[in-house]
Amino acid sequence: MIGHGPDGHPAPTGRVAAVVPAAGSGLRLGAGLPKAFVELHGRTMLERAVAGLLDSGAVDDVVVVVPSDRVREAESMLARLRNDDHLVVVATGGAERTDSVRNGLAALTATHGDAGAAVYDVLLVHDAARCLTPAAPTRRVVEAVRSGEVAVVPVLPVVDTVKQVDDDGYVVGTPDRSGLRAVQTPQGFAPDVLLAAYDAAGDIATDDAGLVERIGQRVATVEGDALAFKITTATDHARALTELAGSRPGSAPPVPAGRIQEDP
Amino acid sequence: MIGHGPDGHPAPTGRVAAVVPAAGSGLRLGAGLPKAFVELHGRTMLERAVAGLLDSGAVDDVVVVVPSDRVREAESMLARLRNDDHLVVVATGGAERTDSVRNGLAALTATHGDAGAAVYDVLLVHDAARCLTPAAPTRRVVEAVRSGEVAVVPVLPVVDTVKQVDDDGYVVGTPDRSGLRAVQTPQGFAPDVLLAAYDAAGDIATDDAGLVERIGQRVATVEGDALAFKITTATDHARALTELAGSRPGSAPPVPAGRIQEDP
Repeated sequence: MIGHGPDGHPAPTGRVAAVVPAAGSGLRLGAGLPKAFVELHGRTMLERAVAGLLDSGAVDDVVVVVPSDRVREAESMLARLRNDDHLVVVATGGAERTDSVRNGLAALTATHGDAGAAVYDVLLVHDAARCLTPAAPTRRVVEAVRSGEVAVVPVLPVVDTVKQVDDDGYVVGTPDRSGLRAVQTPQGFAPDVLLAAYDAAGDIATDDAGLVERIGQRVATVEGDALAFKITTATDHARALTELAGSRPGSAPPVPAGRIQEDP
Repeated sequence: MIGHGPDGHPAPTGRVAAVVPAAGSGLRLGAGLPKAFVELHGRTMLERAVAGLLDSGAVDDVVVVVPSDRVREAESMLARLRNDDHLVVVATGGAERTDSVRNGLAALTATHGDAGAAVYDVLLVHDAARCLTPAAPTRRVVEAVRSGEVAVVPVLPVVDTVKQVDDDGYVVGTPDRSGLRAVQTPQGFAPDVLLAAYDAAGDIATDDAGLVERIGQRVATVEGDALAFKITTATDHARALTELAGSRPGSAPPVPAGRIQEDP
């Protein structure tokens, strides 16, 4: 489907866009900074997340969703990433993550006039807090959507045993770990499926793939990457600094290699 | 209950012992080393794990279970940790983790003659690969068993969304994350309950608390610690080195503090 851009010319098609919701205040670190605006070696997590997506070679455009008082800062931070090949849109966030993603999608598609989302054949949603995500899992997600999957999430095996507990903290069950996967981002979607999932979502806060499951669509998995971990704690932040200091961007630490098996 | 030691004198009671199974070959790192014998800044993970337990002040005795060709090395590595207060026993491992724990329990209780396990009112099982575990979660586990819980596991909230997948990698469900906990070690048990669970276990490989659940006993949870993460990958190994370089033993990195909330 070929739409028309704001200038009346046919809009391009077959592009890939990512929405990066970063409107949360969360726990403020240091001088009143929302999480995505916290720096790691001189660059904010948000800038690193956006640059990582564009540098993967698999993503054309990005829309970031930030608090309204951070728009100017985000514009200035992301200006150097915007060029003839890459649209970088800054939108303002809603009260809930779901609203933020909706606003981001609306702002992004609005830039294409009548063509809207038809410009894209893959839409991604990515956590700013997974700002060290290397190119490979992003590429795998995009490829899988292009191969016909309507929803794709990068996953890793669950390392720890996981237990289901009751409200008093007593264990009520042990889900079979072999069937469990820890879900990362970017998650990828056929545009019509993501838009339909968000239309149906209401205000509920769940993961994006979960919204797609709720409308009865199938979610596929591809291999994630240890470096796509989410920076949520002080320990994670320290680990991120180490990864940046100790390894080239996108590469795993050099030694020791491989995954270690369980002990008998 | 007061038993009698090998010398005919009443054996002490009320002690706490930990079993550390480290008989697995796993993926060998570097020069043919089993995982627990890999060094972190000059000390093996096994030595660090045992020293961490004893240094917590909550553990009296430790039995490590190693491959038969590693007994001499383990004895020499652990000799400095053994003294009048702390029994440190080296046992040889079985083919499966379950066998290793059984062997360890047998070797430990044998040292007390007729008194056997009656010397202990808490038995722990701890992963050597969680060798940076600080004192606090170990103390919490021991305290909870002493308070009357028969099985206690240290847990953390699950950070990533977890999905259940089928054999083809398609998502078949999203367990409610709010009820999920990632389980760490040391896990603590009333001795009779742990021994009964292992008597009933056969050869099945599951986590220790899982064996207790199978015999119908209740498993409680206490707060774990981010530093008790399991070292299973190259990324984990690098992270462990950073933790050792950047923070005092048992302390979390100093900044930024606190847990960061989800982004809307």
